[in-house]
This record gives sequence, structure tokens and C-alpha cells, in this order.
Amino acid sequence: METGKLQPIVWREEKLVLLDQRQLPGKKVFQELSRLEDVITAIKEMVVRGAPAIAISGCFALALEAKHRRGSFQFSDFEGLVKKVHSSRPTAVNLTFALNQARETVQNVSNWQQAYNLLVQFAIQLMEKDLKDNQTLGAEGTKLFPLEQNEFHVITHCNTGALATAGHGTALGVIRSLRDLGKKVVVYADETRPFLQGSRLTAFEMMEEGIECYIISDGMSGWLMNQRKIDAVLVGCDRVARNGDTANKIGTLNLAIVAKSFSVPFFVCATKDSFDLKLETGSSIPIEMRREEEVTQYDFLKDASGHPLLKPGMTSPLEARALNPSFDVTPNFLIQSFITEMGCFPPGEIQNRLKG
Amino acid sequence: METGKLQPIVWREEKLVLLDQRQLPGKKVFQELSRLEDVITAIKEMVVRGAPAIAISGCFALALEAKHRRGSFQFSDFEGLVKKVHSSRPTAVNLTFALNQARETVQNVSNWQQAYNLLVQFAIQLMEKDLKDNQTLGAEGTKLFPLEQNEFHVITHCNTGALATAGHGTALGVIRSLRDLGKKVVVYADETRPFLQGSRLTAFEMMEEGIECYIISDGMSGWLMNQRKIDAVLVGCDRVARNGDTANKIGTLNLAIVAKSFSVPFFVCATKDSFDLKLETGSSIPIEMRREEEVTQYDFLKDASGHPLLKPGMTSPLEARALNPSFDVTPNFLIQSFITEMGCFPPGEIQNRLKG
Repeated sequence: METGKLQPIVWREEKLVLLDQRQLPGKKVFQELSRLEDVITAIKEMVVRGAPAIAISGCFALALEAKHRRGSFQFSDFEGLVKKVHSSRPTAVNLTFALNQARETVQNVSNWQQAYNLLVQFAIQLMEKDLKDNQTLGAEGTKLFPLEQNEFHVITHCNTGALATAGHGTALGVIRSLRDLGKKVVVYADETRPFLQGSRLTAFEMMEEGIECYIISDGMSGWLMNQRKIDAVLVGCDRVARNGDTANKIGTLNLAIVAKSFSVPFFVCATKDSFDLKLETGSSIPIEMRREEEVTQYDFLKDASGHPLLKPGMTSPLEARALNPSFDVTPNFLIQSFITEMGCFPPGEIQNRLKG
Repeated sequence: METGKLQPIVWREEKLVLLDQRQLPGKKVFQELSRLEDVITAIKEMVVRGAPAIAISGCFALALEAKHRRGSFQFSDFEGLVKKVHSSRPTAVNLTFALNQARETVQNVSNWQQAYNLLVQFAIQLMEKDLKDNQTLGAEGTKLFPLEQNEFHVITHCNTGALATAGHGTALGVIRSLRDLGKKVVVYADETRPFLQGSRLTAFEMMEEGIECYIISDGMSGWLMNQRKIDAVLVGCDRVARNGDTANKIGTLNLAIVAKSFSVPFFVCATKDSFDLKLETGSSIPIEMRREEEVTQYDFLKDASGHPLLKPGMTSPLEARALNPSFDVTPNFLIQSFITEMGCFPPGEIQNRLKG
């Protein structure tokens, strides 16, 4: 399977191999996981992150657990496993949808061995589909750019690239697709505090691809839009409500408000699995609150043995308090268009487009 | 002289003693400076920062140099010193005004000894006046708050406290004054990337004062305004143009745009010396660009011997590029009121209020 240069998720010898994204860009270290609990920890600790990548990893987690069970398949047991995986990160909806499909996959199995085989097959298919959908999405996204132009300047937030998906990426996928059309793309990557997915991961991906990239602090986007012509803001998403309200990495809302005030088009890249038509608006999307230390201290990234991945640095007083919402919700009126594998459309068209 | 608990600038035994703010909140280390060049380095390296504190330090720098000169005073020599000091940080205007006054102070002196005496006297007066003005400003600022309320929630950016001034502070001065009226104030401090003045300095000042304070990443303000009733955003400034356009620490513009979109009042705290009536608009305010490493690496804070003050941490790929504007300009229409020692008024009243 072709997944581009960066393979954050690999299924190898009946084990899930995850690229430890907390150690990037310093080191490429892989974790080989053989138990469901280990995958849940990997998701919670952000060894693997990005809504699509979490969904795929969650399905492999079910397979890993099925492998250790013997005898006849108990659906109620399986439900318990699904619930555990589901609670690992609450905001994104891709995981919910993937787990529902996994549930259907094992509807009629009689023993755990059979469940294991079907779950592995399903998770691999999910991974292949995600890559294909990303490539289609990327190509569709290029249609929103005036292609008579040869150079585009875009701002991104968080990491929405090959590392967040099965490969290619959503927002970074559009950038890759523009580049593949022979366009020069200059990327301004919000560093994306507190977890620094922009400076650690997006800059890394762009440099590996040879795409010109400048890291900016999250507070610099207004200054930048005032200085240079920015063609678009491209972000990914974790869940889109029926009216188009979009949950994404904290800081997205501020960026969307700033883009609107400078009349810079704000595009949300999303595969079908990010749309949660059951939700009327974004106000009921659960927002995960994470540890205050991610904001107050610089040594929050720790490896398995508790050793800091970034050397400790005192960045705020001991016992300083912080708020650490991991996501925010951008209201539909700030979003010019969604970019999906089914084409590009404004928030008002979600229901029509997703019926099929 | 009463300057509150934190004394970032002290004149002692004919030397300038600066609290090294880069080492806060970890350590309280003082630098004892006896030469002009050392003060310039201290300003450039942000040992001392904040427009009012820089203005005071710059005047002491002139005094320190006068002390080393012998014989008859040469005004052209003095002009050369003024130029050197002036170039240390270009965005704030307080330094320009203070240096102009220093120039007048020595207009008629005949020897360097006399110049030294007058410059020291002037710098001490400047420091005393700044503290007094801050206290008046703080009291004036409380009038913008509905004082029948007992609790206020405010967002701040950068550090505008005792550490940025001769004491009390501008935006933090208003908060101190509200507290002195018996009000409960909850402060949400933008961490203020890349230099982290919010998490390192504002949180430190608030904790020393016993004022409830939560650090937030700069991208969280929209989420916060959506979650809780925020009574006001309070910021300081480095230079205000005649029309009210305001240069302040990078990230202020984004915060002002977000505040406007949530109808949260946005107040700029400024003493008279921040208003530059010669400038028609903010577009001609020079914006200092600083080292990319402040954004890309976490070990940019170094002590005199080049030893990192925060332990090195790889936060972006080696050779990653970044943009690092140190300030941005907030247009007048986003500012509800200026808070000054002369009272509170909207951008449209600047010219009338500052004529006197």
C-alpha cells in the first residue's frame, strides 16, 4: 500500500506499529503495540493524533484485543471494548463512525478468531479508504484556488497532514495537490500551542516535501494577513455539526475570526466521516479539557518511562494555573467552504450533499 | 521610593541594577550595569522590557556614560549616545520622548560631571513620575467597570505590570486598583508567544499579589469568550498614533479582533508618553523583527555566558524557518477606550485630550 513517505500507522506481523509523534521532529521512534489498553494510552498521550488516524488506530485496537480472546464471540464483551476505545478522545467523530462500522463487521461472527480476521481486514480497508479519500479531497480542494495564479500563500493550523491520516492529509493534502499541479505554495504554519503540532509536525512534513514553510506563533496571523496577500486559510476538523459548526484544534476559532476580518477565505477540509448529521449545532460537541501542565510547563511530553521528551524548562511559576481546552468550535458563518472527497460546498449545503 | 514589591529598575551606588526578567519566574537575578553599552544589550536581550521601563533604563544609560567622560561637555558627542540608545528597540515611543527630555536637560551644561548629575536626577524623576502616573491610570481605569459588580473577569496580553514599568503597571495596574477597591478579579493571561511574557511574568506578578490567574494559550481567547462572561480585555501599548491605531506586543491585534467579534470591551492602557501625535496612523510605526529562533527553538533565552536559561528542547525541525514580528498594530476601530493618567477616552478624542 502506498501511504506516502510518512507512515504514522502500520499493521505488521499482527501488531500495530505507531510512529511516536511526540518525539518528532527530534527522533523517529516507533511503538509496537499488541494490546488494546496500549493503543488507548497511545491515543490519550498523543503518540498518534489527528481524527482520521485515531479512528484507524481505534479499530486496530479492537482487533488486537480480539486476538487475545478465545472461544465463542460475545457481543456484549465486544461492546465493552468499543466503549473503552471510544472514551479515549471524545471530540472527534471519525472514531465513533469507525467503531460503529467495526460493530457491524462482527455482527454475525461466531468466534473471536473470526472477529479478529474481520476486524484486521476492516481496519486495513479503512486505512486504504482514508488515503484514497484524502487524495480525492486534495484534488477537489485545488478547484477553490484561481489556477491561473502560479503562487499561493496559505495559513494552516495544527497538523492535518500524512501524520494525522493514513497518508497525504486533508488540509496539507490540498497543499500537496496544489504543488503536484506545479504551483508554488508558501505555507505559514501556526505553531499551535500548547502541543505545538504546527511547529513540530507540519513544519516537519513540509520540509520533508520541500514545500516552503514559515512557522508563526498563533497570535501572528492578523499581522501576517495585514502584511501579505494570503490566499486562504486551510484547516482540518474533528467534528462538523449539521449546520456547519466545526470543532477543531484549539485556536481554530480565533484564526477563523481573524480571517473573516481580513476577508481571507477560510476552508475546512473534511472527509465524510467528520460530519455528524445527528448534531444540529456545534454547541453540543464535547470539548476535551487536557492537563494544565501542557500550557504551564514545557516538560509535559514524557516517554513511557516518564522521562521528558523536551528538556524541562520553567515557563511559568510553580503551581500556576491554566485552562487547556483541546478544541474549540468555529461557527458556520465563518466558514466559506468545506473541502471534501465529495467536492467543495458551503455550510448550507451539508445536508443535501451528505444524504447520498 | 515606593515601587511596590517588584523593583525591576533600581539606581544604586551610581549603577543601574536591573532584574533579569528572562530568568523569571525561575530565579530572581539582578544585573548591575555601569556602562551604556551594557544597558543597550540588556534592552535588546530583554533583560528589561516594557516600553516605560525601557525609557527609564535608556536615560540611566546616558547617565552611566556621562560618568565616564571627563572635561567639557560636547553636545555632538551626547547626540551620538542618544542615537545609540534610541536604536535599541524601535517600536515603542516612550524611549524617544524620554531621550528628547534628557537632551533638554543637558542643553546648557558645561561639563560631563554636571551632565551626569542632571541626567541621574532626571532619570529618577522619570521613574517616580511613571509610578505616580500608573497609580492614577489604574484608578481612572476602574471607572470603566460597573462597580456595582463584585467580580470581574479580564483577559490580558503580554506583561504590563510592575515589571514593565517603574511599578504598579498599566493594564495590571488597573487590575491592582480594582482589587484595592475590594473587587474580586479573575485574570486570564495570554501566555504571549513567542517570549512568554504572560506565563513567565504576568502569572508571576499575579501570584505574588494573590490575584486569581489562569494562563491560556494565545489561541484560546475566542473559546474563553464563548464560555464565560469576560468583562474586558486590558492591554498596554508601545506606541499610539494620532488616530488611535496602537502598536503593542504581537498577538494584540488578533485578541482585539476576537474581542470585537464577541462584543467584549477592548481597553488600551497608556500613559501620555505612549501617544505619538506626529504619526497620523499606525501604518508608519516601525515593527521590530526579532530572531527566528525565538519561535522555532525553546532554548533562545541565554544568560551572559551563552548558557540556555530554559533547557534546550527541540520544538521544530532543525533549519525550520519562522517569522518573528515583535509587535502588531491594532486599528482604532477595535479600541473602545484608552485608559490614561488623564482619564479614559475613545480614539477619536486623543487630539483634544493631549493638547493640554
